Amino acid sequence: MSRVAGKGGDSVTATAPQEVMAPVVGRLAIIGVGLIGGSLALALRRGAAVGEVIGCGRRRESLERAVALGVIDRWYEEPAEAVAEADMVAVCVPLRAMRSIFTQIVPALAPGAVVTDVGSAKGSVIADAAAVCGEVPTWLVPGHPIAGTEHSGVEAAFAELYERRRVVLTPLPETAAAATAQVTAMWQAAGARVVEMSPEHHDEVLAATSHLPHALAYALVDSLARWDDHREIFELAAGGFRDFTRIASSDPEMWRDISAANRTQLVAALRRYQDDLARLTAALEAGEDEQVLAVYRHARDERARFLKILEGRA
Amino acid sequence: MSRVAGKGGDSVTATAPQEVMAPVVGRLAIIGVGLIGGSLALALRRGAAVGEVIGCGRRRESLERAVALGVIDRWYEEPAEAVAEADMVAVCVPLRAMRSIFTQIVPALAPGAVVTDVGSAKGSVIADAAAVCGEVPTWLVPGHPIAGTEHSGVEAAFAELYERRRVVLTPLPETAAAATAQVTAMWQAAGARVVEMSPEHHDEVLAATSHLPHALAYALVDSLARWDDHREIFELAAGGFRDFTRIASSDPEMWRDISAANRTQLVAALRRYQDDLARLTAALEAGEDEQVLAVYRHARDERARFLKILEGRA
Repeated sequence: MSRVAGKGGDSVTATAPQEVMAPVVGRLAIIGVGLIGGSLALALRRGAAVGEVIGCGRRRESLERAVALGVIDRWYEEPAEAVAEADMVAVCVPLRAMRSIFTQIVPALAPGAVVTDVGSAKGSVIADAAAVCGEVPTWLVPGHPIAGTEHSGVEAAFAELYERRRVVLTPLPETAAAATAQVTAMWQAAGARVVEMSPEHHDEVLAATSHLPHALAYALVDSLARWDDHREIFELAAGGFRDFTRIASSDPEMWRDISAANRTQLVAALRRYQDDLARLTAALEAGEDEQVLAVYRHARDERARFLKILEGRA
Repeated sequence: MSRVAGKGGDSVTATAPQEVMAPVVGRLAIIGVGLIGGSLALALRRGAAVGEVIGCGRRRESLERAVALGVIDRWYEEPAEAVAEADMVAVCVPLRAMRSIFTQIVPALAPGAVVTDVGSAKGSVIADAAAVCGEVPTWLVPGHPIAGTEHSGVEAAFAELYERRRVVLTPLPETAAAATAQVTAMWQAAGARVVEMSPEHHDEVLAATSHLPHALAYALVDSLARWDDHREIFELAAGGFRDFTRIASSDPEMWRDISAANRTQLVAALRRYQDDLARLTAALEAGEDEQVLAVYRHARDERARFLKILEGRA
């Protein structure tokens, strides 16, 4: 089960407040200043919801660009230095880098500092943190903003990315309630609607909505490209195929990592889908066209409901 | 194998000619004046490539609208009347209506008249015509323009729909060469690039590029909507899911008909895809992440090639 946090949960509270008395976050360290981390900084700055933003990344020119773009105030190359004076740390790095970042920042965190992340799988991030700390840390609030674009890098960051978007937080029994409240307030100040659920539930739902479609799209393009006449197949494909396979243009290394990080749930989602697909195939082969129609109709109707949810975030 | 017909096959000849000495088609009858048939009429009119366009359809107000929009010159409600004086007949009706239309027009066709269609499966259209005529008719040039939008109806028609798009023709040994030449010239005058192949090959390729993705998208939305927490699943889905499932908003009855009309090839494509998907699932489950990465990378690279083909029609 999930619940939407916020003052009444209506759409007005989901937009960035125009007047903020005191910054929601004093000093924010962003580890990994790209589309996701950079947009968080810009959204908080726009609402005067952050005092100072410290960046950290591997590429010096990218960090200098982030300063020039007004995304961050200053930067360090070493994560330990970046977090030393921070009240809040947002870890915005690929899943494969999480454990290394935790190893570097844990000894350097200021007392009372809160850490959150933006990883697409939550169980693996929690396992990484627990492995580094020896137990699930009280100061970690695992998070996942359901937002993004096909672009990456700090140049692609924009303040509106999270407006009316869902951010899932998956605090554990060990997590300090005050830490969860601070991270919730930060994302609300960025314009997002915060939802809480267990890490297991997050990983199950995201396997269905995101990881499964990516695997299906990758598998389709890979499969068709191995047909004998694949050049001709691509020549005779049109806009529907282009849209259906858009996510197959995503970063393969990132998606290998996400697939591995959410292996159990993604395998389960793949098997469930294959069972349903086998049933549809059998119905079609047997000439049970009204059964095929029932699937198509149900899908068309449910997608209309999904679009209403997506557009209205009703 | 396929070949591109046309004067040299370069991109210049694919655009609508600005000066035409005589109309390519004298009197064109369009059975079913919607997006596809209406856009064909508009494209030919723009290039002065047609003398007169006669419409035919089931809804009188739609036909009157087509006259008002300058798509057709006049109309009949009876297909037999519409084709009686036509040099060229374009049958632009759903696959399920093909046999009925052939039954009505065959006795009424003028001597020397050529008939083509726009059905998404070609074997079934040829079977329908042969069933009505007792043999494969020499005057039928089965066709399929690879173009469309998410809209339908004559209001959605526009003259540029076929520009640089592929139109597949699947003439048979029985088909009169002059008939194929006339249909080729018509589509070229509408801005399209004409490709010839066998009906079997068309149906195999379109099963892969179009019918399979539709079935996969319908199956996914249907499948997820039957999960217990499907409301939450849709709430946490984002733009990638929206694009991936866009084709699941297509007309279910039309796609039941297409699926049934191309049953053998679609079932084969579904089975082939399921074999590949099962292999990917097994690799992921076994922790063979480099094998997973190989599939994702190959797909990403091949989709980049596809986009070049789609954009450049190279």
